[in-house]
Amino acid sequence: MDDILPSDLVALAEKVIQAHRERGTTISVAESCTGGLVAAALTEIPGSSAVLDRAFVSYSNDAKMEMLAVPSDLIETFGAVSIAVAWSMAQGALAHSKADLAVAITGIAGPEGGSELKPVGTVVFARARRKDLDDKEPAAELKKFDCKTRAEVRHQAAICALELLLPKPSNSA
Amino acid sequence: MDDILPSDLVALAEKVIQAHRERGTTISVAESCTGGLVAAALTEIPGSSAVLDRAFVSYSNDAKMEMLAVPSDLIETFGAVSIAVAWSMAQGALAHSKADLAVAITGIAGPEGGSELKPVGTVVFARARRKDLDDKEPAAELKKFDCKTRAEVRHQAAICALELLLPKPSNSA
Repeated sequence: MDDILPSDLVALAEKVIQAHRERGTTISVAESCTGGLVAAALTEIPGSSAVLDRAFVSYSNDAKMEMLAVPSDLIETFGAVSIAVAWSMAQGALAHSKADLAVAITGIAGPEGGSELKPVGTVVFARARRKDLDDKEPAAELKKFDCKTRAEVRHQAAICALELLLPKPSNSA
Repeated sequence: MDDILPSDLVALAEKVIQAHRERGTTISVAESCTGGLVAAALTEIPGSSAVLDRAFVSYSNDAKMEMLAVPSDLIETFGAVSIAVAWSMAQGALAHSKADLAVAITGIAGPEGGSELKPVGTVVFARARRKDLDDKEPAAELKKFDCKTRAEVRHQAAICALELLLPKPSNSA
Protein backbone atom coordinates (compact mmCIF):
# COMPACT_ATOMS: atom_id res chain seq x y z
CA MET A 1 0.00 0.00 0.00
CA ASP A 2 1.35 3.45 -0.78
CA ASP A 3 1.10 5.91 2.03
CA ILE A 4 -1.39 8.69 2.28
CA LEU A 5 -1.55 8.48 6.08
CA PRO A 6 1.10 7.67 8.68
CA SER A 7 1.62 3.92 8.98
CA ASP A 8 0.98 3.90 12.74
CA LEU A 9 -2.45 5.47 12.19
CA VAL A 10 -3.35 3.00 9.47
CA ALA A 11 -2.13 0.00 11.48
CA LEU A 12 -4.19 1.07 14.47
CA ALA A 13 -7.23 1.80 12.29
CA GLU A 14 -6.92 -1.70 10.89
CA LYS A 15 -6.95 -3.17 14.40
CA VAL A 16 -10.06 -1.14 15.22
CA ILE A 17 -11.93 -2.19 12.07
CA GLN A 18 -10.93 -5.83 12.43
CA ALA A 19 -11.90 -6.02 16.12
CA HIS A 20 -15.35 -4.56 15.49
CA ARG A 21 -15.91 -6.66 12.37
CA GLU A 22 -15.26 -9.77 14.43
CA ARG A 23 -17.74 -8.61 17.07
CA GLY A 24 -20.34 -7.30 14.62
CA THR A 25 -20.29 -3.91 16.34
CA THR A 26 -20.24 -0.46 14.75
CA ILE A 27 -18.54 2.81 15.57
CA SER A 28 -18.67 6.52 14.80
CA VAL A 29 -16.49 9.55 15.50
CA ALA A 30 -17.16 13.21 16.18
CA GLU A 31 -14.06 15.20 15.33
CA SER A 32 -13.18 18.76 16.06
CA CYS A 33 -9.41 19.43 16.09
CA THR A 34 -8.58 16.25 14.16
CA GLY A 35 -10.95 17.47 11.44
CA GLY A 36 -11.61 14.15 9.70
CA LEU A 37 -8.24 12.51 10.26
CA VAL A 38 -9.63 9.68 12.39
CA ALA A 39 -12.41 8.96 9.90
CA ALA A 40 -9.87 9.11 7.06
CA ALA A 41 -7.68 6.53 8.81
CA LEU A 42 -10.62 4.20 9.51
CA THR A 43 -11.96 4.40 5.95
CA GLU A 44 -8.50 3.67 4.58
CA ILE A 45 -9.12 0.07 5.61
CA PRO A 46 -10.90 -2.10 3.02
CA GLY A 47 -14.20 -3.33 4.42
CA SER A 48 -14.45 -0.46 6.92
CA SER A 49 -17.99 0.25 5.74
CA ALA A 50 -19.19 -2.71 7.83
CA VAL A 51 -17.98 -0.92 10.96
CA LEU A 52 -18.16 2.84 10.29
CA ASP A 53 -21.10 4.23 8.37
CA ARG A 54 -20.67 7.95 9.15
CA ALA A 55 -18.54 10.50 10.96
CA PHE A 56 -19.05 14.09 12.01
CA VAL A 57 -16.48 16.80 11.43
CA SER A 58 -17.86 19.42 13.78
CA TYR A 59 -15.17 22.03 13.70
CA SER A 60 -17.02 25.14 14.91
CA ASN A 61 -19.27 25.63 17.92
CA ASP A 62 -22.26 25.99 15.58
CA ALA A 63 -21.36 22.68 13.96
CA LYS A 64 -21.16 20.96 17.36
CA MET A 65 -24.60 22.32 18.23
CA GLU A 66 -26.25 21.68 14.86
CA MET A 67 -24.70 18.33 13.91
CA LEU A 68 -24.45 16.77 17.37
CA ALA A 69 -26.97 18.72 19.48
CA VAL A 70 -24.30 19.87 21.93
CA PRO A 71 -26.12 22.40 24.17
CA SER A 72 -24.86 25.96 23.71
CA ASP A 73 -24.74 26.49 27.47
CA LEU A 74 -22.22 23.66 27.83
CA ILE A 75 -19.96 25.39 25.33
CA GLU A 76 -20.45 28.77 26.99
CA THR A 77 -19.87 27.45 30.49
CA PHE A 78 -17.03 25.01 29.99
CA GLY A 79 -15.59 25.97 26.59
CA ALA A 80 -15.47 23.90 23.42
CA VAL A 81 -12.36 22.08 24.70
CA SER A 82 -13.78 20.50 27.84
CA ILE A 83 -14.82 17.16 29.26
CA ALA A 84 -18.46 18.25 29.19
CA VAL A 85 -18.44 19.18 25.50
CA ALA A 86 -16.44 16.12 24.43
CA TRP A 87 -18.90 13.90 26.28
CA SER A 88 -21.85 15.69 24.70
CA MET A 89 -20.27 15.32 21.25
CA ALA A 90 -19.86 11.57 21.77
CA GLN A 91 -23.46 11.26 22.96
CA GLY A 92 -24.53 13.29 19.93
CA ALA A 93 -22.66 10.97 17.60
CA LEU A 94 -24.55 8.02 19.09
CA ALA A 95 -27.86 9.88 18.85
CA HIS A 96 -27.26 10.75 15.19
CA SER A 97 -26.13 7.29 14.10
CA LYS A 98 -26.80 3.67 14.92
CA ALA A 99 -23.25 3.10 16.16
CA ASP A 100 -22.59 0.99 19.24
CA LEU A 101 -19.57 3.08 20.21
CA ALA A 102 -18.64 6.70 19.54
CA VAL A 103 -15.48 8.66 20.28
CA ALA A 104 -15.26 12.44 20.27
CA ILE A 105 -12.16 14.60 19.97
CA THR A 106 -11.97 18.32 20.72
CA GLY A 107 -8.78 20.24 21.30
CA ILE A 108 -6.40 23.01 20.46
CA ALA A 109 -4.14 21.99 17.58
CA GLY A 110 -2.53 25.41 17.30
CA PRO A 111 -0.56 27.38 16.47
CA GLU A 112 -3.23 29.87 17.65
CA GLY A 113 -6.00 29.40 20.19
CA GLY A 114 -4.04 28.32 23.26
CA SER A 115 -4.35 29.86 26.71
CA GLU A 116 -2.52 29.43 30.00
CA LEU A 117 -5.14 26.99 31.25
CA LYS A 118 -5.57 25.24 27.92
CA PRO A 119 -2.33 25.54 25.97
CA VAL A 120 -1.86 24.34 22.40
CA GLY A 121 -1.78 20.55 22.58
CA THR A 122 -4.70 20.31 25.00
CA VAL A 123 -7.09 17.69 23.65
CA VAL A 124 -10.15 16.14 25.28
CA PHE A 125 -11.45 12.70 24.34
CA ALA A 126 -14.75 11.05 25.18
CA ARG A 127 -15.84 7.46 24.65
CA ALA A 128 -19.56 6.62 24.78
CA ARG A 129 -21.24 3.27 24.32
CA ARG A 130 -24.87 2.92 23.37
CA LYS A 131 -25.43 0.24 26.00
CA ASP A 132 -24.23 2.69 28.67
CA LEU A 133 -26.41 5.57 27.50
CA ASP A 134 -28.01 5.89 30.92
CA ASP A 135 -24.65 6.51 32.55
CA LYS A 136 -24.46 10.02 33.85
CA GLU A 137 -20.74 9.77 34.45
CA PRO A 138 -18.80 10.97 31.42
CA ALA A 139 -16.05 8.66 30.21
CA ALA A 140 -13.77 11.42 29.06
CA GLU A 141 -10.28 12.63 29.66
CA LEU A 142 -8.20 15.71 29.00
CA LYS A 143 -4.66 15.25 27.72
CA LYS A 144 -1.90 17.74 27.10
CA PHE A 145 0.37 16.76 24.26
CA ASP A 146 3.80 18.27 24.34
CA CYS A 147 4.03 18.63 20.59
CA LYS A 148 5.80 21.16 18.46
CA THR A 149 3.46 21.44 15.51
CA ARG A 150 -0.21 21.39 14.57
CA ALA A 151 0.42 18.24 12.54
CA GLU A 152 1.99 16.50 15.55
CA VAL A 153 -0.87 17.43 17.87
CA ARG A 154 -3.41 16.11 15.36
CA HIS A 155 -1.39 12.95 14.76
CA GLN A 156 -1.12 12.17 18.48
CA ALA A 157 -4.79 13.01 19.03
CA ALA A 158 -5.85 10.70 16.20
CA ILE A 159 -3.81 7.84 17.72
CA CYS A 160 -5.47 8.36 21.10
CA ALA A 161 -8.90 8.42 19.47
CA LEU A 162 -8.23 5.19 17.59
CA GLU A 163 -7.08 3.52 20.81
CA LEU A 164 -10.35 4.54 22.43
CA LEU A 165 -12.21 3.04 19.47
CA LEU A 166 -10.82 -0.42 20.23
CA PRO A 167 -13.40 -2.61 21.93
CA LYS A 168 -12.80 -3.22 25.59
CA PRO A 169 -11.48 -6.76 26.08
CA SER A 170 -14.46 -7.80 28.19
CA ASN A 171 -17.23 -7.78 25.63
CA SER A 172 -18.83 -6.24 22.54
CA ALA A 173 -18.07 -2.58 21.77
CA MET B 1 5.88 20.75 9.47
CA ASP B 2 6.10 17.00 9.78
CA ASP B 3 3.97 15.02 7.41
CA ILE B 4 0.75 13.35 8.34
CA LEU B 5 -0.75 13.88 4.90
CA PRO B 6 0.80 13.89 1.42
CA SER B 7 2.47 17.22 0.68
CA ASP B 8 0.49 17.75 -2.53
CA LEU B 9 -2.78 17.45 -0.61
CA VAL B 10 -1.64 19.88 2.07
CA ALA B 11 -0.30 22.39 -0.47
CA LEU B 12 -3.57 22.34 -2.36
CA ALA B 13 -5.59 22.58 0.84
CA GLU B 14 -3.56 25.63 1.77
CA LYS B 15 -4.39 27.26 -1.57
CA VAL B 16 -8.08 26.55 -1.00
CA ILE B 17 -8.12 27.96 2.53
CA GLN B 18 -6.12 31.02 1.56
CA ALA B 19 -8.27 31.82 -1.48
CA HIS B 20 -11.50 31.63 0.51
CA ARG B 21 -10.07 33.56 3.45
CA GLU B 22 -9.20 36.37 1.07
CA ARG B 23 -12.72 36.37 -0.35
CA GLY B 24 -14.47 35.87 3.00
CA THR B 25 -16.28 32.82 1.64
CA THR B 26 -16.86 29.48 3.35
CA ILE B 27 -16.87 25.87 2.19
CA SER B 28 -18.00 22.42 3.22
CA VAL B 29 -17.48 18.87 1.99
CA ALA B 30 -19.61 15.75 1.87
CA GLU B 31 -17.35 12.73 1.62
CA SER B 32 -18.13 9.15 0.86
CA CYS B 33 -15.16 7.20 -0.56
CA THR B 34 -12.58 9.72 0.68
CA GLY B 35 -14.01 9.23 4.17
CA GLY B 36 -12.74 12.43 5.79
CA LEU B 37 -9.49 12.80 3.89
CA VAL B 38 -10.48 16.08 2.23
CA ALA B 39 -11.65 17.57 5.53
CA ALA B 40 -8.47 16.32 7.21
CA ALA B 41 -6.34 18.08 4.57
CA LEU B 42 -8.30 21.33 4.87
CA THR B 43 -8.16 21.37 8.67
CA GLU B 44 -4.43 20.72 8.57
CA ILE B 45 -4.07 24.38 7.60
CA PRO B 46 -3.84 26.85 10.51
CA GLY B 47 -6.76 29.27 10.38
CA SER B 48 -8.92 26.87 8.37
CA SER B 49 -11.76 27.38 10.86
CA ALA B 50 -12.52 30.72 9.16
CA VAL B 51 -13.31 28.82 5.96
CA LEU B 52 -14.55 25.34 6.93
CA ASP B 53 -16.81 24.92 9.92
CA ARG B 54 -18.07 21.40 9.30
CA ALA B 55 -17.85 18.38 7.02
CA PHE B 56 -19.94 15.29 6.49
CA VAL B 57 -18.49 11.81 6.25
CA SER B 58 -21.50 10.04 4.80
CA TYR B 59 -20.10 6.65 4.05
CA SER B 60 -23.23 4.49 3.85
CA ASN B 61 -26.47 5.04 1.97
CA ASP B 62 -28.27 5.60 5.28
CA ALA B 63 -25.73 8.25 6.20
CA LYS B 64 -26.24 10.02 2.86
CA MET B 65 -29.99 10.04 3.47
CA GLU B 66 -29.87 10.97 7.14
CA MET B 67 -27.01 13.49 7.20
CA LEU B 68 -27.57 15.10 3.80
CA ALA B 69 -31.19 14.33 2.95
CA VAL B 70 -30.26 12.47 -0.23
CA PRO B 71 -33.57 10.94 -1.43
CA SER B 72 -33.57 7.14 -1.23
CA ASP B 73 -35.11 6.87 -4.70
CA LEU B 74 -32.08 8.64 -6.20
CA ILE B 75 -29.80 6.03 -4.63
CA GLU B 76 -32.06 3.18 -5.73
CA THR B 77 -32.44 4.47 -9.28
CA PHE B 78 -28.94 5.72 -10.06
CA GLY B 79 -26.77 4.06 -7.40
CA ALA B 80 -24.70 5.71 -4.68
CA VAL B 81 -21.90 6.39 -7.16
CA SER B 82 -23.75 8.59 -9.64
CA ILE B 83 -24.00 12.18 -10.80
CA ALA B 84 -27.47 12.44 -9.25
CA VAL B 85 -26.37 11.30 -5.81
CA ALA B 86 -23.18 13.37 -5.79
CA TRP B 87 -25.19 16.45 -6.72
CA SER B 88 -27.74 15.72 -4.03
CA MET B 89 -24.95 15.24 -1.46
CA ALA B 90 -23.46 18.63 -2.36
CA GLN B 91 -26.87 20.28 -2.12
CA GLY B 92 -27.37 18.57 1.23
CA ALA B 93 -24.05 19.88 2.51
CA LEU B 94 -25.19 23.42 1.63
CA ALA B 95 -28.58 22.84 3.23
CA HIS B 96 -26.99 21.55 6.44
CA SER B 97 -24.38 24.30 6.78
CA LYS B 98 -23.99 27.98 5.99
CA ALA B 99 -21.21 27.33 3.47
CA ASP B 100 -21.08 29.28 0.20
CA LEU B 101 -19.61 26.34 -1.66
CA ALA B 102 -19.84 22.58 -1.14
CA VAL B 103 -18.13 19.69 -2.89
CA ALA B 104 -19.28 16.08 -2.68
CA ILE B 105 -17.28 12.95 -3.44
CA THR B 106 -18.73 9.47 -3.93
CA GLY B 107 -16.89 6.60 -5.52
CA ILE B 108 -15.52 3.11 -5.46
CA ALA B 109 -12.13 3.03 -3.76
CA GLY B 110 -11.88 -0.73 -3.85
CA PRO B 111 -10.57 -3.32 -3.69
CA GLU B 112 -14.17 -4.63 -3.59
CA GLY B 113 -17.34 -3.02 -4.91
CA GLY B 114 -16.45 -2.50 -8.55
CA SER B 115 -18.58 -3.58 -11.51
CA GLU B 116 -18.12 -3.59 -15.27
CA LEU B 117 -19.97 -0.30 -15.60
CA LYS B 118 -18.44 1.26 -12.50
CA PRO B 119 -15.03 -0.31 -11.91
CA VAL B 120 -12.85 0.40 -8.88
CA GLY B 121 -11.52 3.92 -9.34
CA THR B 122 -14.86 5.35 -10.48
CA VAL B 123 -15.45 8.54 -8.50
CA VAL B 124 -18.13 11.18 -8.97
CA PHE B 125 -17.65 14.78 -7.86
CA ALA B 126 -20.21 17.54 -7.50
CA ARG B 127 -19.67 21.24 -6.85
CA ALA B 128 -22.59 23.36 -5.64
CA ARG B 129 -22.66 27.07 -4.81
CA ARG B 130 -25.28 28.60 -2.59
CA LYS B 131 -25.79 31.46 -5.01
CA ASP B 132 -26.64 28.99 -7.77
CA LEU B 133 -29.10 27.00 -5.67
CA ASP B 134 -31.87 27.50 -8.19
CA ASP B 135 -29.84 25.86 -10.93
CA LYS B 136 -31.42 22.61 -11.95
CA GLU B 137 -28.38 21.54 -13.92
CA PRO B 138 -26.01 19.51 -11.74
CA ALA B 139 -22.38 20.61 -11.82
CA ALA B 140 -20.99 17.15 -11.43
CA GLU B 141 -18.66 14.81 -13.23
CA LEU B 142 -17.73 11.17 -13.18
CA LYS B 143 -14.07 10.23 -13.39
CA LYS B 144 -12.36 6.89 -13.69
CA PHE B 145 -8.98 6.80 -12.01
CA ASP B 146 -6.61 4.20 -13.30
CA CYS B 147 -5.10 3.50 -9.89
CA LYS B 148 -3.67 0.37 -8.41
CA THR B 149 -4.65 0.73 -4.77
CA ARG B 150 -7.41 2.00 -2.53
CA ALA B 151 -4.99 4.58 -1.11
CA GLU B 152 -4.18 5.86 -4.61
CA VAL B 153 -7.83 6.18 -5.59
CA ARG B 154 -8.58 8.12 -2.41
CA HIS B 155 -5.51 10.31 -2.84
CA GLN B 156 -6.41 11.21 -6.43
CA ALA B 157 -10.06 11.77 -5.48
CA ALA B 158 -9.06 14.09 -2.64
CA ILE B 159 -6.89 16.13 -5.02
CA CYS B 160 -9.77 16.49 -7.47
CA ALA B 161 -12.11 17.53 -4.66
CA LEU B 162 -9.67 20.16 -3.41
CA GLU B 163 -9.32 21.54 -6.93
CA LEU B 164 -13.10 21.87 -7.11
CA LEU B 165 -13.03 23.71 -3.79
CA LEU B 166 -10.89 26.49 -5.28
CA PRO B 167 -12.97 29.57 -6.03
CA LYS B 168 -13.66 30.18 -9.68
CA PRO B 169 -11.48 33.06 -10.92
CA SER B 170 -14.47 35.22 -11.81
CA ASN B 171 -15.83 35.99 -8.39
CA SER B 172 -16.55 34.89 -4.81
CA ALA B 173 -16.91 31.17 -4.13
